[in-house]
Amino acid sequence: MARIRLGMVGGGNDAFIGGVHRIAARIDGRYELVAGALSSTAEKSKASGAALGLASDRCYGDFAEMAKREARLKDGIQAVAIVTPNHVHFPAAREFLKRGIHVICDKPLTSTMADAKKLVAAAEKSDALFVLTHNYTGYPMVRQARQMIAEGAIGRVRVVQAEYPQDWLTKPLEGEGVKQAEWRTDPARSGAGGCVGDIGTHAFNLAGFVTGLELESLAADLDSFVDGRRLDDNVNVMLRYAGGAKGMLWSSQVAPGNENGLKLRVYGEDGGLEWTQADPNYLWFTPYGQPKQLLTRGGAGATSSNLEASRIPPGHPEGYLEGFANIYNEAADLIEAASEGRKPEHLLPTVQDGLAGMKFIDACVRSSARNAAWVTL
Amino acid sequence: MARIRLGMVGGGNDAFIGGVHRIAARIDGRYELVAGALSSTAEKSKASGAALGLASDRCYGDFAEMAKREARLKDGIQAVAIVTPNHVHFPAAREFLKRGIHVICDKPLTSTMADAKKLVAAAEKSDALFVLTHNYTGYPMVRQARQMIAEGAIGRVRVVQAEYPQDWLTKPLEGEGVKQAEWRTDPARSGAGGCVGDIGTHAFNLAGFVTGLELESLAADLDSFVDGRRLDDNVNVMLRYAGGAKGMLWSSQVAPGNENGLKLRVYGEDGGLEWTQADPNYLWFTPYGQPKQLLTRGGAGATSSNLEASRIPPGHPEGYLEGFANIYNEAADLIEAASEGRKPEHLLPTVQDGLAGMKFIDACVRSSARNAAWVTL
Amino acid sequence: MARIRLGMVGGGNDAFIGGVHRIAARIDGRYELVAGALSSTAEKSKASGAALGLASDRCYGDFAEMAKREARLKDGIQAVAIVTPNHVHFPAAREFLKRGIHVICDKPLTSTMADAKKLVAAAEKSDALFVLTHNYTGYPMVRQARQMIAEGAIGRVRVVQAEYPQDWLTKPLEGEGVKQAEWRTDPARSGAGGCVGDIGTHAFNLAGFVTGLELESLAADLDSFVDGRRLDDNVNVMLRYAGGAKGMLWSSQVAPGNENGLKLRVYGEDGGLEWTQADPNYLWFTPYGQPKQLLTRGGAGATSSNLEASRIPPGHPEGYLEGFANIYNEAADLIEAASEGRKPEHLLPTVQDGLAGMKFIDACVRSSARNAAWVTL
Amino acid sequence: MARIRLGMVGGGNDAFIGGVHRIAARIDGRYELVAGALSSTAEKSKASGAALGLASDRCYGDFAEMAKREARLKDGIQAVAIVTPNHVHFPAAREFLKRGIHVICDKPLTSTMADAKKLVAAAEKSDALFVLTHNYTGYPMVRQARQMIAEGAIGRVRVVQAEYPQDWLTKPLEGEGVKQAEWRTDPARSGAGGCVGDIGTHAFNLAGFVTGLELESLAADLDSFVDGRRLDDNVNVMLRYAGGAKGMLWSSQVAPGNENGLKLRVYGEDGGLEWTQADPNYLWFTPYGQPKQLLTRGGAGATSSNLEASRIPPGHPEGYLEGFANIYNEAADLIEAASEGRKPEHLLPTVQDGLAGMKFIDACVRSSARNAAWVTL
Repeated sequence: MARIRLGMVGGGNDAFIGGVHRIAARIDGRYELVAGALSSTAEKSKASGAALGLASDRCYGDFAEMAKREARLKDGIQAVAIVTPNHVHFPAAREFLKRGIHVICDKPLTSTMADAKKLVAAAEKSDALFVLTHNYTGYPMVRQARQMIAEGAIGRVRVVQAEYPQDWLTKPLEGEGVKQAEWRTDPARSGAGGCVGDIGTHAFNLAGFVTGLELESLAADLDSFVDGRRLDDNVNVMLRYAGGAKGMLWSSQVAPGNENGLKLRVYGEDGGLEWTQADPNYLWFTPYGQPKQLLTRGGAGATSSNLEASRIPPGHPEGYLEGFANIYNEAADLIEAASEGRKPEHLLPTVQDGLAGMKFIDACVRSSARNAAWVTL
Repeated sequence: MARIRLGMVGGGNDAFIGGVHRIAARIDGRYELVAGALSSTAEKSKASGAALGLASDRCYGDFAEMAKREARLKDGIQAVAIVTPNHVHFPAAREFLKRGIHVICDKPLTSTMADAKKLVAAAEKSDALFVLTHNYTGYPMVRQARQMIAEGAIGRVRVVQAEYPQDWLTKPLEGEGVKQAEWRTDPARSGAGGCVGDIGTHAFNLAGFVTGLELESLAADLDSFVDGRRLDDNVNVMLRYAGGAKGMLWSSQVAPGNENGLKLRVYGEDGGLEWTQADPNYLWFTPYGQPKQLLTRGGAGATSSNLEASRIPPGHPEGYLEGFANIYNEAADLIEAASEGRKPEHLLPTVQDGLAGMKFIDACVRSSARNAAWVTL
Repeated sequence: MARIRLGMVGGGNDAFIGGVHRIAARIDGRYELVAGALSSTAEKSKASGAALGLASDRCYGDFAEMAKREARLKDGIQAVAIVTPNHVHFPAAREFLKRGIHVICDKPLTSTMADAKKLVAAAEKSDALFVLTHNYTGYPMVRQARQMIAEGAIGRVRVVQAEYPQDWLTKPLEGEGVKQAEWRTDPARSGAGGCVGDIGTHAFNLAGFVTGLELESLAADLDSFVDGRRLDDNVNVMLRYAGGAKGMLWSSQVAPGNENGLKLRVYGEDGGLEWTQADPNYLWFTPYGQPKQLLTRGGAGATSSNLEASRIPPGHPEGYLEGFANIYNEAADLIEAASEGRKPEHLLPTVQDGLAGMKFIDACVRSSARNAAWVTL
Repeated sequence: MARIRLGMVGGGNDAFIGGVHRIAARIDGRYELVAGALSSTAEKSKASGAALGLASDRCYGDFAEMAKREARLKDGIQAVAIVTPNHVHFPAAREFLKRGIHVICDKPLTSTMADAKKLVAAAEKSDALFVLTHNYTGYPMVRQARQMIAEGAIGRVRVVQAEYPQDWLTKPLEGEGVKQAEWRTDPARSGAGGCVGDIGTHAFNLAGFVTGLELESLAADLDSFVDGRRLDDNVNVMLRYAGGAKGMLWSSQVAPGNENGLKLRVYGEDGGLEWTQADPNYLWFTPYGQPKQLLTRGGAGATSSNLEASRIPPGHPEGYLEGFANIYNEAADLIEAASEGRKPEHLLPTVQDGLAGMKFIDACVRSSARNAAWVTL
């Protein structure tokens, strides 16, 4: 199969996540980056593109021009990765979706609920795919956890504990010229949620992905601990799932010592599961009344979903980039299937998952504004 | 110094915590158990006492008789350990306090708020000491965490994450003849709180001990996941401390794989601290912007409070019993000081700490009854 | 049962291990320390004894006087703990053994092979017991490991990896007035082995205890890395067991970061076991082709020997002192049995185990002197 | 910069390491695989090549034909990855080196010492580069460990503990049709070393890379525990380095529970370092007399070499493939430099490192044949 021609919106210099998408797209050799609106001006875009080996005439000053022109090219891009700040997700995605170009978009879905609903409509109207990079769902042990719960390994779920602490915003970096900090604490670019939108959504999404539970209501207490910060940097949430399971979710960007501490613990009537992103090749399985088991990527006790998402033998650690690459690899499957008129089942996050994430952010913000009252999603 | 003559109320056969208190009292050789109302009848009490080497005439059928008689003996007990189910704490403590016998009492303070207030009054009226065995505060690394925060090592505290999951009540053991499960799930003996009273209070107390913060209000969502259970077995709480720090507290007795998972994490403006009860000889110290440090009991970087609470060199693990013994050892210091008319400063949990714990339980129950609304303590 | 009257030789001020023996003897309440030759002069001994609550006339200036006098007392000591530097073990033990007083002696057995053989003879001739405190064999998970191997859980043993690194002698403390360092690096008091005698023997003993294997030959490379040190401070050994199993043993006192890192790993035809002293409540069991299991003290999968050596529920960590106390507790069983003419089976280290340890030290020293040639034990 | 045109020898179906090399070559986007002698016949090679998107006429039946033809093509390969069983390394490398095609070769260097020496000669005669994929040296924390030692962070090195246990050959898989097991236990294809050649060399290489020490002599005890196995599956070695440092090395393929347990511990006069391959983003640094520090990839305390070898922020785990990709990435730097006539300094394993590894294997085999006597390298 020929490589899928990929474009990118955003991801110029200084942008962490753009580089991640590019590596993820390369790992399995199924994409070729051929075009980009990488930066905010044509000049900068061409400079960034040159460093990436893009032809100068495929480096654009904005996504609209890129969408229009690439759609006309005989060998124009088949898919686009959108890796901009949140407020650009919707307008950019719309342009590509309406031209039938598949979209792989970073999370959260958009910066506003209004945009989110429009993007859902645009995605549902389009024949093109829309994949949201909730990349943590691509880890093999996360896949195994999901499969085990679906197959009843821990019984009916009672308790969910999700957390995602970081520490990089412990000090007011947004006032010190750090671009990543600037836009992530700016309501105009990030939306109403700060930490809750940036990483709280990942924890929320992960909990739903693994447990299969639907969140009904929540009570959220958001804080901005750093003086002058305009968005939340610490998020405490209590969760009530349909069917009676209860949970807690904590995310923070002011918790020193936590580099990127996404963690999920799920307890059911018959056992528990624990997974930590920083050590992603392990999954604790604790069947009630039996010894604790440390399951590993590709190791003894691996489920089919674990093995399918693995590349190399157990004990050879795979990491964040491989998990991210699984999203790209499976998106490639879907893109190839689409070209043949097939729509296979898959595990990838969809625009509906993105909408659910937006509802989560919105509910947290609403709840917190009402003294952490319970709100429905 | 001669050993302090100790009596015990409760702690007959089948009682886990009675044996713990006895070992804790023996470790440093400062007490001699000489009397007991160990069980609910004189006959059973004598049987239990015989196994412990007590003289038959110092084994009583009830605490009232014991208090009365021991107070008259020339070599009667100087202190009593109360290790019964919660509802007996108050009436028993009252009898000894009013006779000037020092009381070392298990937590929570009582089974009702009304009793708690009466016990506070009784303790304050008495010349005798009242020590509550929030034993986890006796661990050397907990002492170090408290001292480090007091000395500013992590700056002003912003975020508290306390948790105490267990798994032993995952199934309905109270219906299977397990005595420990019976009384701990019985409102008449435990009070209005189940899991929240049994272990949630430990987590609450630990957070306050370490941070020095006062809890102002909370929102609690209590559940009884096991069919027919009469008290809560899972506790989700959001916390607001005086001065603006925020926290979460989770305790559960239905979380498979968690044997006794008390854990505290505290994050301030300049760093963080993490401590886990199951591995108590370690304390993570994470100063912002510097490498993570793993501090150890008695090891490099140990504070004075760590060293004072340690018996043996680093790398030779001390455990739960030694932490518990620190409470007994320091109570012995106070008892000896009292006999000399001194009242030295100390770190031991007092009746006021017990009252605070009762208010915490009460607030959790009230909040949960009102759909987890915020309530003040 | 009345408490066993215990004496102690050594264990005055500055002596770490004396305090450990005293706590271990107290934990289960089966001994009462009533006499001591705690220090090298009667005056010092009385001062140390006073601090421990001993009667002045039971504090002796030397062990010979103590043995003679206590043997004549109606309520003289029934057992003695010998906690001196190694060279005193034999002469002291001899005095008590020949008077029928049970001996609980610290390891290694003696400071010379000649003494060791004489001590074996003395112990075998005496009706009194001789127990060597290879305390690490008292840990519940060590007991479980031994039982599992004996019951075939990992199949025939192929590979043994034992290690015991410490770091406290990284610098020349013996030249800085540290008493513990002085005698442990002094051939006259420690014997021909330094690190190998002090802690290497523990690792050797533990490997034999757990596997049941007999060491046939070894090749050892001993070093003194610290300038001027008179005994080895780093020990590399290759092991050949009867029956074909192979092993390695490393012990060191110059490995910074290792507080007390005794660790044993055993691999058989069907599985493996791993235990680490610093985290003693855990035991990894890795059956070939199955998920790794983390077994816990008193938890699911606990063997009878684990449970019998445990005092409190899983998740409430027991430590070094409880493991040590198990030796004392079981010695009390033997002493009581002896008083009734019974000689029950037991797991306690004997004088023969002590002799085996001396042969190990001797073989290591001989091998190293011959350029680490293979020598038989 | 245009991508480097890469060929591959070996790496057809069933071959684990071929896929690893291909991903490693793709991650940073600097190579394009365009030709291959992937399997032992032209037909199989074309089938494997087709699956990888290679043009049919660039898929060869043997490496000699490939080398000859590609050297003549205008856009022929610039570099070749050799990922065959060991005995093919030398003849294949020779063909490409003599035509000026850069060689990236899997370890160990060859299957015999004679071949190794010829390969050194061939590499030194050629203008082309020869890079050996001792991939573990590519991990960022390994780079940091090396730099820290070179800069004196732990003082003069005294003690090295290297180990590399696996468990996949615990049972006689070579008799069950497992190809990976067949050739790795076959002297004709692997050489005189089994486990020692396959993974022992990695541990040896890693220890040398990190410490900068040169091994002078060793004593090795090799075993084949599995009945009928023709090469060693367990390797115990004592090490003596130039300058006086001592070490031990254990590698095994019959240690159940060890998936891929490469680990290195180094202790010097002033501190220690510990690194474990399965958790590669961490490095323990234990300065003597100070708290233990857990250093992380890209985190606080990262050295320049750590940061240069990292792609993404701390807490986002990089793994085996990224470490391997660092080798490819830096080889690309060298290849580009070579095309400009430059020969920059680098950290990549060379043919001389490969020769050192062969001498290590040879010395182990010689020593073991002489009852584990000491032999010089």
